[in-house]
Amino acid sequence: MADTAKRLAALRERMRQTGTDLVALGPGSHMQWLLGFHPHPDERPCLLFVGPQREAFLMPALNAEGSRGATDIPFHPWSDAEGPQAALAAALADAGATDARRVVLDETMRADFALTLLEALPQAGHAFTDATVGALRMRKDETEFAALKASATAADRAMQRAFSALRPGLSETELAAEIRAAFAEQGAAPLFTIVGGGGNGAFPHHQAGERRFEEGDAVVIDIGARKGGYPSDITRMAVVGRPPEGYRDVHAVVERAVQAALAAARPGVPAKAVDAAARGVIAEAGYGDYFVHRTGHGLGIDGHEPPYLTSTSETELEEGMVFSIEPGIYLPGRFGIRLEEIVILRADGPEIFSDLPRDLHVAGA
Amino acid sequence: MADTAKRLAALRERMRQTGTDLVALGPGSHMQWLLGFHPHPDERPCLLFVGPQREAFLMPALNAEGSRGATDIPFHPWSDAEGPQAALAAALADAGATDARRVVLDETMRADFALTLLEALPQAGHAFTDATVGALRMRKDETEFAALKASATAADRAMQRAFSALRPGLSETELAAEIRAAFAEQGAAPLFTIVGGGGNGAFPHHQAGERRFEEGDAVVIDIGARKGGYPSDITRMAVVGRPPEGYRDVHAVVERAVQAALAAARPGVPAKAVDAAARGVIAEAGYGDYFVHRTGHGLGIDGHEPPYLTSTSETELEEGMVFSIEPGIYLPGRFGIRLEEIVILRADGPEIFSDLPRDLHVAGA
Repeated sequence: MADTAKRLAALRERMRQTGTDLVALGPGSHMQWLLGFHPHPDERPCLLFVGPQREAFLMPALNAEGSRGATDIPFHPWSDAEGPQAALAAALADAGATDARRVVLDETMRADFALTLLEALPQAGHAFTDATVGALRMRKDETEFAALKASATAADRAMQRAFSALRPGLSETELAAEIRAAFAEQGAAPLFTIVGGGGNGAFPHHQAGERRFEEGDAVVIDIGARKGGYPSDITRMAVVGRPPEGYRDVHAVVERAVQAALAAARPGVPAKAVDAAARGVIAEAGYGDYFVHRTGHGLGIDGHEPPYLTSTSETELEEGMVFSIEPGIYLPGRFGIRLEEIVILRADGPEIFSDLPRDLHVAGA
Repeated sequence: MADTAKRLAALRERMRQTGTDLVALGPGSHMQWLLGFHPHPDERPCLLFVGPQREAFLMPALNAEGSRGATDIPFHPWSDAEGPQAALAAALADAGATDARRVVLDETMRADFALTLLEALPQAGHAFTDATVGALRMRKDETEFAALKASATAADRAMQRAFSALRPGLSETELAAEIRAAFAEQGAAPLFTIVGGGGNGAFPHHQAGERRFEEGDAVVIDIGARKGGYPSDITRMAVVGRPPEGYRDVHAVVERAVQAALAAARPGVPAKAVDAAARGVIAEAGYGDYFVHRTGHGLGIDGHEPPYLTSTSETELEEGMVFSIEPGIYLPGRFGIRLEEIVILRADGPEIFSDLPRDLHVAGA
């Protein structure tokens, strides 16, 4: 609740700065950040309204009891028989937002929640949370840093388990199962286990499949799990036996791209400058067409959140922001290489969460 | 793909009947039903457009390769550097929907996807999928029935495991773990395990907690898991030792409410008539204020989907619809009782998926 009071005050300050009359959040990550909980999300409209002075909850009656202990914000419950319209009007009035003209919508809420709300506020224009909740969530406090660090440490151990288990004849899904077991043993709930061997590594979002590792396979291992409410995300490369023809040169290019991005990431720099630093190294080496995604994404309660490190993002990096740096080169039919660090931006540059080197791990060596 | 062709044809027929120029689906259950897959959902706009003659996909470039094998629909990829605007315009043109005036939006898509699309179609009015995809999904074919039946059978076995494991001193979470293990052994991924003993049973959405069962606890066990792409959902009541004072009379009321709803559910009847049948029995017995939720919900790819059996729903029940019948009475501080069946509506009435009786299970008896 102490965090909630602090975060609500910071949100109201942002609302004043941006001329926002109402912030409406669905039962998701933004609400989790602000209140430390969110009701069960389903098809029943459930919205938190933050007005200029007061907050109010549009709350499905079925969830009211379960949520009551978690917050002091007034509930406006509605039953399945009544439907949400009357409670919606009452909640907006309670939040002092009946005449709101500038409304910030949680961009992740369901389309029907958003359009129902906008129909109840025909005079209102809308924006998403970029300049309010989103801007605040990008900068992590030390509590969040500690949780992210603990989660990253679990991911390091799961990656080391993967390195130990990798051998010819094992399938991608079997390696993924080892990784998930390593996470589970540490109290972390697996979120994704991308294991791409050989040509599969050239698809950036390939999940683990039935393919079995062969001598000479380069393997992309990109894994994450949730622990203490916060996710991890790390990518390392391993090889079964001897790396394929040309592998080491390309790995070195990706490594230089990571280092260039780390060197470029400083408070006050636009996010696109970090992308440009990584992309420049790869383009100069002749692989520009094979780096098909952005350089990074923020990480917090969500595994993907602002800031996004794209070639066009003007978002100014600030101290306390946490994001990935993960350039890659994907050569169709041959192999893919991605190296990913999660960092927190300090005054003098990025601090890396992981303790693992980014070198190619040679299995069985 | 055969299912897709049939379902697309049925959707186009609904579009003609409703004067719909464009159906836009996000990467979720509606798309899963139509195409048999959906791309990874994240913050990158990804939409399937179904126009009068053609379909087109607005597709994040990162997901294009992974989705290519799953469909022949033309992709309009966009990269993180470009952003989605140009690809969105091209996809709308490809679907013949640039001038669409009546647009159906997947109500579950993210608010930012929906508002971005509506801004690209300023001349368009919108509706949600109720009369198109939603109406079609309510009626299950025999393939879907078979998958739901297999899933329900797994839930019956998990419930029987719960009955065997229940004893004084065991905690709600420990019983939930038994249930999840029983699901996992059958290849079913647990979705929820509501285990509410004693007073906890009086909160309809209570999850399993640390409370340990005591002699005389009535226990609500409401569980579901996903198997073969389809969920299960069943609620039964158990008691540790002798049931609490007054329990058996209230159980009998809920049982009569289930039977009244089963008798009322016939093709051609509005959904609210089924709710009224169950609610009438409970009100007549003097417990009307303690039945705080709707009588049922549809079940298909989603665990909660149309039709909803509320006191106001005019939705006409049809042969092939699958839904829950789950009246309950919740007496604060004493106990809660809910009995839930999933049924498919046949020409002559509902066919129940579960083979378990709805009697009170007495643990250790």
